[in-house]
Amino acid sequence: MTDTPAPAWQISEWLNTDSPLSLEALRGRVVIAHAFQMLCPGCVQHGVPQAEKLHRMFSSDQAQVVGLHTVFEHHDVMTPAALRVFLHEFRITHPIGVDTPVPGDRIPATMRAYQMQGTPTLMLIDRAGKLRLQHFGRLDDLVVGAEVMRLVMEGPEEQ
Amino acid sequence: MTDTPAPAWQISEWLNTDSPLSLEALRGRVVIAHAFQMLCPGCVQHGVPQAEKLHRMFSSDQAQVVGLHTVFEHHDVMTPAALRVFLHEFRITHPIGVDTPVPGDRIPATMRAYQMQGTPTLMLIDRAGKLRLQHFGRLDDLVVGAEVMRLVMEGPEEQ
Amino acid sequence: MTDTPAPAWQISEWLNTDSPLSLEALRGRVVIAHAFQMLCPGCVQHGVPQAEKLHRMFSSDQAQVVGLHTVFEHHDVMTPAALRVFLHEFRITHPIGVDTPVPGDRIPATMRAYQMQGTPTLMLIDRAGKLRLQHFGRLDDLVVGAEVMRLVMEGPEEQ
Amino acid sequence: MTDTPAPAWQISEWLNTDSPLSLEALRGRVVIAHAFQMLCPGCVQHGVPQAEKLHRMFSSDQAQVVGLHTVFEHHDVMTPAALRVFLHEFRITHPIGVDTPVPGDRIPATMRAYQMQGTPTLMLIDRAGKLRLQHFGRLDDLVVGAEVMRLVMEGPEEQ
Repeated sequence: MTDTPAPAWQISEWLNTDSPLSLEALRGRVVIAHAFQMLCPGCVQHGVPQAEKLHRMFSSDQAQVVGLHTVFEHHDVMTPAALRVFLHEFRITHPIGVDTPVPGDRIPATMRAYQMQGTPTLMLIDRAGKLRLQHFGRLDDLVVGAEVMRLVMEGPEEQ
Repeated sequence: MTDTPAPAWQISEWLNTDSPLSLEALRGRVVIAHAFQMLCPGCVQHGVPQAEKLHRMFSSDQAQVVGLHTVFEHHDVMTPAALRVFLHEFRITHPIGVDTPVPGDRIPATMRAYQMQGTPTLMLIDRAGKLRLQHFGRLDDLVVGAEVMRLVMEGPEEQ
Repeated sequence: MTDTPAPAWQISEWLNTDSPLSLEALRGRVVIAHAFQMLCPGCVQHGVPQAEKLHRMFSSDQAQVVGLHTVFEHHDVMTPAALRVFLHEFRITHPIGVDTPVPGDRIPATMRAYQMQGTPTLMLIDRAGKLRLQHFGRLDDLVVGAEVMRLVMEGPEEQ
Repeated sequence: MTDTPAPAWQISEWLNTDSPLSLEALRGRVVIAHAFQMLCPGCVQHGVPQAEKLHRMFSSDQAQVVGLHTVFEHHDVMTPAALRVFLHEFRITHPIGVDTPVPGDRIPATMRAYQMQGTPTLMLIDRAGKLRLQHFGRLDDLVVGAEVMRLVMEGPEEQ
């Protein structure tokens, strides 16, 4: 667990949403962010479906689910156009932001800012915008359900 | 969701615990109770392992997990002696109470008091002893993790 | 893989069948036998359901599926009466023989004759009555499907 | 089940193999072919891993496993370059042929020749080159293991 402010997302393109999302605009709500790559097996089998289930389980007022497509390898293949097909075929309906590529760096901007080790990575951000949990790899559904509800239940005064 | 006081458990024998448990003595703690039968497939495959995972995940100060062996069929076979073997073989370590049989009734006493429809049944009881959730059948891990944490996070004044 | 004659089964009681089965009477057919205990987790989760699927997949003329309840621990609990409830609750429909208990030995007669190491154990017996495969533990469905069909496809002259 | 000669594959590019494969050159061996698309959920979750397991289970002398990348939608995204990344990330090691695109037709040539309904599709071809099974959708591992072994066990004279 960490207790620092969650760095702003740097997103080059949004999918599954009419308008861009930002942590600043989401202040006051719990945010469940997950970083993935569309051709990462652990993401396809675990991280992305878990996030989609959370999206269908919580109202966005309680907890907003956001996917970050953090491409750090095979950039020529995991393009936004390919991502759009992936989301359609796997019936993923929650908002997805494409992490902004950085010239001369294989790591995109948001992935760098969060110092992620790889994908999938789950991040839980509280109503005050603090990064309360960042986890690389699989996290059990019981644990994730509990940790999300912990932040949902915190009163505004605790932030 | 219900909001009535959880009826007292009527237990003829305790396993996996040195001393009997009661809702009265557990007042002030969240209680996760699950009713099962050792030869009910949905219990063996889902309810019992889910409860055991919760037991390993939460400290008993936060949330106490308790199994209730509510035998309402095949009473001659699902005896306390058989239950003891089941718990050993399936490596179940959380406290289990044998629901008290009632002469002339195939439904045991606690199962009757809670008006359970069958097994598995999950019950969540808050710090004030109120029955906040009772669910017959499978409940997803994400939902269970969240609902348990909801009660854990409630301040004493909300009860 | 072995190539010895399969020892005769020693069965004290048959369930799920009108008449007793014997390897001698099954000569000319492929036999899929599996040894299990009703309170062995690996049997309940893997061995028994796999056998039931094979039973529904092959006609008994092609391959006869037989379960052997080889109780080698907790004999007082895993009785034939308890087994009957287990088969009913888990919807197991293939013939089951209770391996004959031996006074003064915790290992029952058939289990001893086959020198089994534990449960679940899968045994494949060819049309000539030879024990062609004996495996303790889990065996993948792809492998089991293939090894059964290997024996089914063997012409009588190869035996 | 069918009993017609399996149409020749029309492949524009091979991956995971040093030299092109053809049904003609494979005559005398059993062939397990599976058609898939890299962004088809049923393929990623079931068809492709099942084929890879068969590849590791059978020697290519017994049964040669071949994947056909039959892209019939989102052609601009499921390119050979993207396929190469998919195979690498999902650790797929069996030979894969890219089904030849047909100008003016969204269905590629081999998919059209086999009149496939979609992906995943499994095809089993016997030593004489006859298409013995073609199945669209999921097929249970027990069934697939058995059907492959049926063809492996057929003597040359039965063809």
